[in-house]
Amino acid sequence: MTPINFMLVIEYDGSAYHGWQRQKNEPTIQEMIENAIVTMTGQKITLQGSGRTDAGVHALGQVANFLCQTRLTPRELQKGLNSLLPEDIVVKACSQVNKPFHARYDVKRKAYRYRILNRALPAAIGRQYAWHVRSPLEINAMQQCADLLKGTHAFDAFEGAGSPRSSSTRTVFTADWRKEDQDILVFEIEADGLLRFMVRNIVGTLVAVGLGKMTVSDVRLVLASRDRKKAPATAPAQGLFLVKVTY
Amino acid sequence: MTPINFMLVIEYDGSAYHGWQRQKNEPTIQEMIENAIVTMTGQKITLQGSGRTDAGVHALGQVANFLCQTRLTPRELQKGLNSLLPEDIVVKACSQVNKPFHARYDVKRKAYRYRILNRALPAAIGRQYAWHVRSPLEINAMQQCADLLKGTHAFDAFEGAGSPRSSSTRTVFTADWRKEDQDILVFEIEADGLLRFMVRNIVGTLVAVGLGKMTVSDVRLVLASRDRKKAPATAPAQGLFLVKVTY
Repeated sequence: MTPINFMLVIEYDGSAYHGWQRQKNEPTIQEMIENAIVTMTGQKITLQGSGRTDAGVHALGQVANFLCQTRLTPRELQKGLNSLLPEDIVVKACSQVNKPFHARYDVKRKAYRYRILNRALPAAIGRQYAWHVRSPLEINAMQQCADLLKGTHAFDAFEGAGSPRSSSTRTVFTADWRKEDQDILVFEIEADGLLRFMVRNIVGTLVAVGLGKMTVSDVRLVLASRDRKKAPATAPAQGLFLVKVTY
Repeated sequence: MTPINFMLVIEYDGSAYHGWQRQKNEPTIQEMIENAIVTMTGQKITLQGSGRTDAGVHALGQVANFLCQTRLTPRELQKGLNSLLPEDIVVKACSQVNKPFHARYDVKRKAYRYRILNRALPAAIGRQYAWHVRSPLEINAMQQCADLLKGTHAFDAFEGAGSPRSSSTRTVFTADWRKEDQDILVFEIEADGLLRFMVRNIVGTLVAVGLGKMTVSDVRLVLASRDRKKAPATAPAQGLFLVKVTY
């Protein structure tokens, strides 16, 4: 039997996990899904994600692929995985793809969303899905800074330590703030690739601007400096969602 | 010092709790807040809720009151409680009220919301806040049944065992379905009081209608029968929110 290349689209709530990538002593999403595939197929496989998500980060459309010798159809695999997996991981789609497809190497674009609850009081309901910022944010200034990031730049100033990359240059297609309900601010960013912690570092900086602690010109200088130490603190994980991966 | 009567408005995520009411060996919301008040004031108090919520049920606006001898202002109490309480319980308001005010006896109306995720696939994100119903629901038929419930009726057929009540007659002011986003159905119900499990029993029945397992006439007969055994199963706790208590 020749192995089949399966592609999964996965939604997960990252709250209970130490991120996507398998680790020795901590629960991860990759490990949960790999174990469920082994249970179904009896074969040891490696699940290749489109990229890591860090501890506590969520996904609405993470993509992964794996090679497996099985007579199970994609539909049967999807149903079986969803019955085996815990409720905080859902396989939204499963399909057979061409042998050369690789969930990481073939990425064309990635879209992320970051949600902020912007009001004095925290929320109990949905607290896992937003960063609570107490002081009022000036969304127009934040959008001006977001506009600076659009296009092709070297993003060293917004890169986390230990990013596994050969170049820090990325092209940002979308970087837009919008209001969702009364107190929720949502940042949508899409790029041809994102460095480690890049979205959370950008959001941390734009929030500093929204709070009046930095100006738009400051952000222009930070970006040009290519120096991580110039940018403010990283935004917390729970507001971040990997929304869509395009191939 | 004469005791002050404090009123709290509380939001909570019920997922981790065995309901509102203090129990011997299980964590409850009442217990968490009472313990925080004791920590702040050094006084043993009893927190009187507007009523119980069952295990796993959420609240956006539970109301409770307690008598306490303290020099703390309502604002100080609120801030202190929110710093002591876990993230899944938030005191949204704290005020000083007249001595005779009683959070349970003085209730005039209670509004509840029930959320259903109605699509084939479950959701990982927000799964704690909706009942997942796979098959398509016919919302018009469900609204016709909801209309039957409006007004004053004896609701024995929708009452849970062990309801602490003298009469099963209640007046329903609002009972309306609406669509929220693409796949979310929301039921809003407001009444002068709700029997134990009443909302979840009503939703269980209306969903049976929405699935075509019962007709509108069946529901009319169930209501008239005043017999709990005639109504379908109770809807699960995680879709239910106590939204507002009116005095």
